[in-house]
Amino acid sequence: MELDKDKGHLVIIGGHEDRTQDKTVLKRFVELAGGGGRKIVVISAASGMADEMWKIYDAAFADLGVERRVHLAVHTREDANADNVLRELSDAAGIFMTGGDQKRLLANIGGTALDRALHQAYQQRGACIGGTSAGASAMSGHMLATGHAGPQPEKGAVNMGAGLGLVHGVVIDQHFSERHRLARLLTVVAQNPYLQGVGIDEDTALIVARGRGIEVVGQGAVTIVDGRSMHSNMADVAGGGCPQLVDVRLHLLPGGSAYQLPVAGAEHAVPAALLDFLHLVTKRIDYHEDH
Amino acid sequence: MELDKDKGHLVIIGGHEDRTQDKTVLKRFVELAGGGGRKIVVISAASGMADEMWKIYDAAFADLGVERRVHLAVHTREDANADNVLRELSDAAGIFMTGGDQKRLLANIGGTALDRALHQAYQQRGACIGGTSAGASAMSGHMLATGHAGPQPEKGAVNMGAGLGLVHGVVIDQHFSERHRLARLLTVVAQNPYLQGVGIDEDTALIVARGRGIEVVGQGAVTIVDGRSMHSNMADVAGGGCPQLVDVRLHLLPGGSAYQLPVAGAEHAVPAALLDFLHLVTKRIDYHEDH
Repeated sequence: MELDKDKGHLVIIGGHEDRTQDKTVLKRFVELAGGGGRKIVVISAASGMADEMWKIYDAAFADLGVERRVHLAVHTREDANADNVLRELSDAAGIFMTGGDQKRLLANIGGTALDRALHQAYQQRGACIGGTSAGASAMSGHMLATGHAGPQPEKGAVNMGAGLGLVHGVVIDQHFSERHRLARLLTVVAQNPYLQGVGIDEDTALIVARGRGIEVVGQGAVTIVDGRSMHSNMADVAGGGCPQLVDVRLHLLPGGSAYQLPVAGAEHAVPAALLDFLHLVTKRIDYHEDH
Repeated sequence: MELDKDKGHLVIIGGHEDRTQDKTVLKRFVELAGGGGRKIVVISAASGMADEMWKIYDAAFADLGVERRVHLAVHTREDANADNVLRELSDAAGIFMTGGDQKRLLANIGGTALDRALHQAYQQRGACIGGTSAGASAMSGHMLATGHAGPQPEKGAVNMGAGLGLVHGVVIDQHFSERHRLARLLTVVAQNPYLQGVGIDEDTALIVARGRGIEVVGQGAVTIVDGRSMHSNMADVAGGGCPQLVDVRLHLLPGGSAYQLPVAGAEHAVPAALLDFLHLVTKRIDYHEDH
């Protein structure tokens, strides 16, 4: 059975999703991949404990009725260019990236054949791409690579890197409320005001339906921080200092929130402040433009 | 020496201000009260350990060169209506309210002669009124009385009460970044959208110069949460649930931030998003209007 090429999804998970009980978030991932009859591939390249990761997700997806489950460990860039890897991805309906370290993930797969296959799967074949924790942060074009989370924003406390670019114009942080990362996300936005910051709580997913809309699933919430109208003195603050930020827009979308892209001419219920974000994350990108 | 009746100040402190080393925040309180030559009264009515509190502040203000230091313990409403209490306040240049429990403070002094004397001191005599932790929360008309601070906003997680009303249109929380209280302040604002939420970090003060402007002093920052343009489903959320909030405005003012009220016809540097807040907290209120 073919996927619908117009119906790709991203399932961007804030880490620590339930893998043994209700599995609400993983269950939605499987549904969006077309259900248990479809093939799901787990990429553990972010993790230093690939086999342990695979065991956890193998069991969780088996519990959810997925029969065809494949592990791609991808320890090296050679692995990420290997024929068998590309063959496994070519008919995967769901591709799931585990947690670990987003820098390790990008070091192993950034710019490889596997990376291109991920984009094709989402943008051309309509597959569902999931990522949790490091696998979530890696999805944006500008990636939050490292950073510490102090009580206040702090100039220089975060380092950015080049992520997979499955979504552009945003930067993604995870374990968001649980690890008190608002100050660090404000740091990112203050230093990079054209990016909208997206903070995803544990056991919670921001789901992007390509070209159609977004929904939030899970126990926590998604926090969006929009600094585009902000007044800030970031440029004049010394390293380690706390910037002044005036007029940052903050949105909090708990599990159950859902917004569809407005259809031309029809009434819609999307608040104006959320419209740009919605257009941004759902944007259909032809494969040739996005690399 | 008389105080300047047009120059009252509020020094609203987020708790845990340094009392033994640099004492930056307390030093500024003493300066705004006119310096070490003036009389400072400490009201420990919020605390169950009035004498311990007095020892700490007696030592701190002595170190800062204040010669006339008076303790008003105020254990009962009778104490708060006693003649000696009013005599002590009538020529105090600085009045400082300690931490403890803001409900205890209001139970003991709300609506008493002491309460009226505080307002007169600020609005009519130009005294400097300081409050830390519970003493800070108590300053607003709508007071955050109790509440727990979970990871996400939560309907019903906060209880409001009637505060002293030295400042109106805002609600004040303290120990803000250190105790991760943004979610609880968002709960307040979501439930009370015409109040602007003010979260003050430890060892940090929001200083209000009546009729003139604001400044922030100390190690941390002041966070302002403005939900007046917000879209929210709070009314439809069940108790304990997390509301959806879109377009909350957030301002972060670290120590060193300062804004003056614009003067008619002159250029000014206050961002439009901060102007209402500035007018609100600096408002000159004639005594007869504010009770």
